[in-house]
Amino acid sequence: MAYNYVKGVQSLNVSATVKHFAGFSAPEQGLNTGPVHGGERELRTTWLPSFKRAIMDAGAWNIMGAYHSYDGIPSISDGHLQETILREEWGYKYWLTSDAGATDRLCCAFKLCRCKTQDAPIDSEAVTLMALPNGNDVEMGGGSYNYANIPQLVEQGKLDIKVVDRAVSRQLRAKFEMGLFENPYPGLSMNASQSSIHPDEHVRLARTLEAESIVLLENKNATLPLSKSASIAVIGPMGNITNLGDYVVYRSQYNPANVSPLQGITSTSEGKVTFAQGCERWSNDKSGFPAAVAAAQAADVAVVVVGTWSRDQNELWQGLNATTGEHVDVASLSLVGAMGELVQAIIETGKPTVVVYSSGKPVTEPWISKNAAALVQQFYPGEQGGNGLADVLFGDVAPSGKLSVSFPYDVGTLPVYYDYLNSGRPTDAGAILADGTLSFGHQYVLNSPQPLYEFGYGLSYANFTYSNVTLSKTTASASDTITAMVSVTNPSPVDGKEVVQVYVQDVYASVVVPNMELKGFKKVMVKAGETVQVSIDLDVSKWGLWDSKMQYVVEKGDFVVHVGASSKDLRGNGTVTVA
Amino acid sequence: MAYNYVKGVQSLNVSATVKHFAGFSAPEQGLNTGPVHGGERELRTTWLPSFKRAIMDAGAWNIMGAYHSYDGIPSISDGHLQETILREEWGYKYWLTSDAGATDRLCCAFKLCRCKTQDAPIDSEAVTLMALPNGNDVEMGGGSYNYANIPQLVEQGKLDIKVVDRAVSRQLRAKFEMGLFENPYPGLSMNASQSSIHPDEHVRLARTLEAESIVLLENKNATLPLSKSASIAVIGPMGNITNLGDYVVYRSQYNPANVSPLQGITSTSEGKVTFAQGCERWSNDKSGFPAAVAAAQAADVAVVVVGTWSRDQNELWQGLNATTGEHVDVASLSLVGAMGELVQAIIETGKPTVVVYSSGKPVTEPWISKNAAALVQQFYPGEQGGNGLADVLFGDVAPSGKLSVSFPYDVGTLPVYYDYLNSGRPTDAGAILADGTLSFGHQYVLNSPQPLYEFGYGLSYANFTYSNVTLSKTTASASDTITAMVSVTNPSPVDGKEVVQVYVQDVYASVVVPNMELKGFKKVMVKAGETVQVSIDLDVSKWGLWDSKMQYVVEKGDFVVHVGASSKDLRGNGTVTVA
Repeated sequence: MAYNYVKGVQSLNVSATVKHFAGFSAPEQGLNTGPVHGGERELRTTWLPSFKRAIMDAGAWNIMGAYHSYDGIPSISDGHLQETILREEWGYKYWLTSDAGATDRLCCAFKLCRCKTQDAPIDSEAVTLMALPNGNDVEMGGGSYNYANIPQLVEQGKLDIKVVDRAVSRQLRAKFEMGLFENPYPGLSMNASQSSIHPDEHVRLARTLEAESIVLLENKNATLPLSKSASIAVIGPMGNITNLGDYVVYRSQYNPANVSPLQGITSTSEGKVTFAQGCERWSNDKSGFPAAVAAAQAADVAVVVVGTWSRDQNELWQGLNATTGEHVDVASLSLVGAMGELVQAIIETGKPTVVVYSSGKPVTEPWISKNAAALVQQFYPGEQGGNGLADVLFGDVAPSGKLSVSFPYDVGTLPVYYDYLNSGRPTDAGAILADGTLSFGHQYVLNSPQPLYEFGYGLSYANFTYSNVTLSKTTASASDTITAMVSVTNPSPVDGKEVVQVYVQDVYASVVVPNMELKGFKKVMVKAGETVQVSIDLDVSKWGLWDSKMQYVVEKGDFVVHVGASSKDLRGNGTVTVA
Repeated sequence: MAYNYVKGVQSLNVSATVKHFAGFSAPEQGLNTGPVHGGERELRTTWLPSFKRAIMDAGAWNIMGAYHSYDGIPSISDGHLQETILREEWGYKYWLTSDAGATDRLCCAFKLCRCKTQDAPIDSEAVTLMALPNGNDVEMGGGSYNYANIPQLVEQGKLDIKVVDRAVSRQLRAKFEMGLFENPYPGLSMNASQSSIHPDEHVRLARTLEAESIVLLENKNATLPLSKSASIAVIGPMGNITNLGDYVVYRSQYNPANVSPLQGITSTSEGKVTFAQGCERWSNDKSGFPAAVAAAQAADVAVVVVGTWSRDQNELWQGLNATTGEHVDVASLSLVGAMGELVQAIIETGKPTVVVYSSGKPVTEPWISKNAAALVQQFYPGEQGGNGLADVLFGDVAPSGKLSVSFPYDVGTLPVYYDYLNSGRPTDAGAILADGTLSFGHQYVLNSPQPLYEFGYGLSYANFTYSNVTLSKTTASASDTITAMVSVTNPSPVDGKEVVQVYVQDVYASVVVPNMELKGFKKVMVKAGETVQVSIDLDVSKWGLWDSKMQYVVEKGDFVVHVGASSKDLRGNGTVTVA
C-alpha cells in the first residue's frame, strides 16, 4: 500500500515523505516518544522491509526520521541505520528530514545534549553536530532552528563543509528529479483547483473505499443485511459524528460534507429512522439510557455506534478528551465511560442489536462479541463513512474487509500478533464464565493468549469454500516466482468478495523466525453459486531470514504455503522445497 | 544477593548453578518459553551485569542455559553469548548445563530441528550438534538423552572430538576445584544430618528473615502496630495456608512445621483471635461473606489475607489452579474471584481493616490501597512466614522491607520500572474517580504510567529524615571509589530500620541510558530520637555505558548521586564530575 501511495503521489512530481524511519512502532510505557526494545534481526525482519519497499522500490524522494531510541540508539543520531543501512546498503540518494520541533526536545530528554535553563533548554549546536553527520539533511521547522548554527560551526572548524555539501546535494538531487528547476510552480491554477477538488467521482470513490474497508466481525442469524423497510433506532454517542481521526485538517470533523452513521443510514433507509444518543462518549452519565432503550423498543432493529475517538491536532494538543491519536495512550482497550453499559442495555431489550465499532484501534469487549446480533468494525472513516456504513448494513455492498491487526480479549493479553516468532507456545486458556465461574488455565490463568479476532479475519454475507490448492512448482530456487492457485466457490445466494490470503511458513531455520508470514493476498468477486480461480504470485526471494551472521539468506529446505481466509482459518496448503 | 548466595553454597564445596543464562526475563505473550525482544546493548546494560557478578566475581562452578530466543537467537545455540561473551570476554572456565527436557522440545518448537512423528518428535542428533559446539557442556536429564548420540556423531565425523574434550575438561575442572577427587562424598552422615537440619537457630533466623522482608505499603492513623490485647478477626482464604511458592519440595506446603498467618497471629496475640475464610481463593462464591463480616464486626480489628498463590511443581504440572508459578501466566494483576469483594465487604464494616497481600507478584488494587486502614505486602514466605508477619503486625519488629519491583495501577500500564531509559516521557495522567467521573489525561487517558508503589518503596512505624548528603569526592576518575554519606534521623518515638538507597543518574551520555540506576543501599537501625551517619561506597567503574561501538566506557561528565528512601522519594544529592 505504501509503495502504491508513493508512486501515486510522486507521479505528479509531488514528493512523498516516508515516515518515521524506522523501528518506531513499539515504544513502551505508553509513550510515543519512548524507547523501543529490539535487536538488529528484529529491525531487519519486521520493521525495515516495508520501508525498503516504500523508499527504494517506489523511489521516494524524502524520508523523515523517528523520535525514539532503538536499543539505546536515538533515531536522531543513528548513523548505523541512516548511513550504513539506508545509504550504503540500500543506496538511497535523496534527503532525510528531521522534525526540529521533536528532535531538539528529544536530544534533551534522551540526555544526549547538555541542556541549559528553562528559557533556553536546548543546546542546538549539539543537535546539529549530532544530526547532520548522522544522516539528517533537512530540518523541518517546529519552532526551533538548530541548523542556523551551520555557518558558525563550519567557521569554527567543528563541522566539515563536506557534510553540509552532502546534505545539500541530497536535497538538490530530489528537486532536480522532481523537475522543480524546469517547472518550479506545478500547482493548479485557482480555477482548476475548484473543479479538481471534491468532484463527484472522488466522492463516489471515497464511498466505495469506505464500504470495502468495513470488517464484519459477527452476524448471528443473518441479522445483516438489514431490510431497507425496517424501522431503525440509531443509538450511541458516535452515531451522529464523523470519527475522522487526528491527522486531519483543522476542524475537518465539522465539515458539512461529512456523512455520519445516522445520516448515511437515514438517507439509504426507506423506513423510519430514529436517533438516541444514550450517553456522551466521555462520561458515565446514564441519564440518556431510558430514551435510548425506548427508541430500541419502538424499532425493528437497533444500530448502536460506539468506539474510540480522536480529534484534529489542534483540539488534541489543546487537551480536549480523546482516546486515540498522537500522544494519546490508553491503559485499556475496553469501551470508555457508559458506552459499554449502553450497548448492554440495548441488547437486553431483546431487539436485534447491531453494534458498530467506530474506532482507531481494536476494542476488547468479548461480552458484546458474544451477545450482539451483529458486530461491525469501521476504522477511522473519511467524509463518506456514514454512506459506506449504510451500504454495508443494507447489503448494497457485501462486506469484504479483513482485519489488518489482531483483536485481543483484553489489554492484559497483549501483545497478540499472528507472526509471532516460533516458540514453545502453549495455550491452556482459562476464562471467567458468563455466570462468574472461574475456569482455570495456565496461559493465561483466566484468559487466552489467542486473539478474539485474528489478523486477516472478516465475514461476508456470502460464504466461500476453498478447494484445489496447487502450486506452480514444488521445488524452487531463491530467484523463482511461484504461483499459488486455489478455487474459491460461493455456494450462497448472494454475491460477495473474498480476500484470499497466502501465508508462508519456514519449516526449519537456523534462527528463530516468525511462525508464518503473509506473503500475498487478493480480493476477488465471487458471484452467487459460482467458482473463481485465484492465482497469487510469490517471490521466493522474500522467504529469507537474517542469519546468525546477520546475512540475508533464503535457506534451503521446506516451506509450507498456506492458503486461507484469515491467519487462523487456513484452508489448504502445499509444500515448496527450496534447493 | 546472588554473589553471596553462590559464595555461601560453594564455601562447602557444593556447586551453585546460576540460571538461566541470559536475557530470559521478558518473554512476550505471557509465555515463559517465548521470544524476547532486545538488542545487544540492552543485554549488556540490563541483563548481564548481575550474571557477571554471580558467575565471575563469585566464581560459580556451573551455569544453566535458558529456554528462549533473544532477537531470534535461541539460547540453546547462542554461540555469541556463550562462547564469545561468557568464555572469551569473561573468561568463564567451568561448565554450562542444558536442560534436555526443555531444550530438545524447544529445538522443535523453535523450528530449528527437523522434527519427526508424535512418538519420536525430536531430532536429537540435531540438538547435540547445535548445543555442544555452542557452549553447552552437560545435559541435565529431563526424560531425553540427546548426548547419547556423541559416540556415533564422532565416529561419523559429524562432531569434532575436540568439542567433546572441551566439554569434559570444563566439567572436570569444576570437580577438581570442588575437591571431589580427594573427597568424593562430602555429605553429612545420617546422624549428623538429623542434628544439622532444622535446628532452633535456623528457625530463629528464618523468622528474622521473614519479618525483615515484609513491606509496609499503607498505614493510616497508625493502625499498625496492633495491640496484643486487641481482639482480631483473621479473614480470607490465604489466612490459614502457607504460601510457599512453586520451587519447593513436593508437598512442603503441607509441612506441619509451617506457620500460617492465622497461627502466627494466634500464638503472638494475647487477645481473642477468630478466623473466617470468607471465600475460596479460586471461586466467586460469596456464601462465606456473612460469617466473615460478622467476625469482623465482633472484633476490634480485621486482618484480611488475600493474594496470589502457587503450588509445588507436582501439583502445578498436574494442572491444579494457581495464579503464580512456573508456566503460570496471568492477564490481570488484580485479585482473583471473590477475594477483592471480600476485602471490600470487610472494609465497609467500618472496623479497622489491615489487608495483607500474600503473593509472588504485585497485586493491582488501587481501591484497597486507598481504603484499607493498613496494607502489608508479604512475598512468598518460608515456614516461619506467619510468625514473621505477626512480629511485624504487633510491632515486635518494625517493618523495614522495600519493594524490589514497582507495583502498577493496572496490568494495562505495564511495563513500569524505575530504571526506564531516558525518554521524552510525559505524564499527563487521567483517572476514573471514586464517583465514576472520568478525568481525562493523555498518558494514560484514564490511568497513569507512574507506579502505584515504586521500586524501593516501603514504610516503617518510625519515620526518618535525611540531611547532610555529602560525597567524598566531587571529581573522580573511572577507577575511583566514592563514598556517599548522609545523616538519617529518626524523630519518632519508636526504633526502626531504614534502607538508604543511592541512585546514580548520568546527566549526559552518547547513547540512551537508564534515567537512573540503584548503585548502592544499606539497611541501618536508627533508634528513636537518634541520628546515624550512613556511608555507602560507589565504584565509579560501574557507571559506564555500552557506547555506539558496543564498547564499555565510563564517559566523562557529570553524574548526579541521589540519596533517598525509594526510587521516587529522593532526599538529597551531590554531583560528581568524571574527568
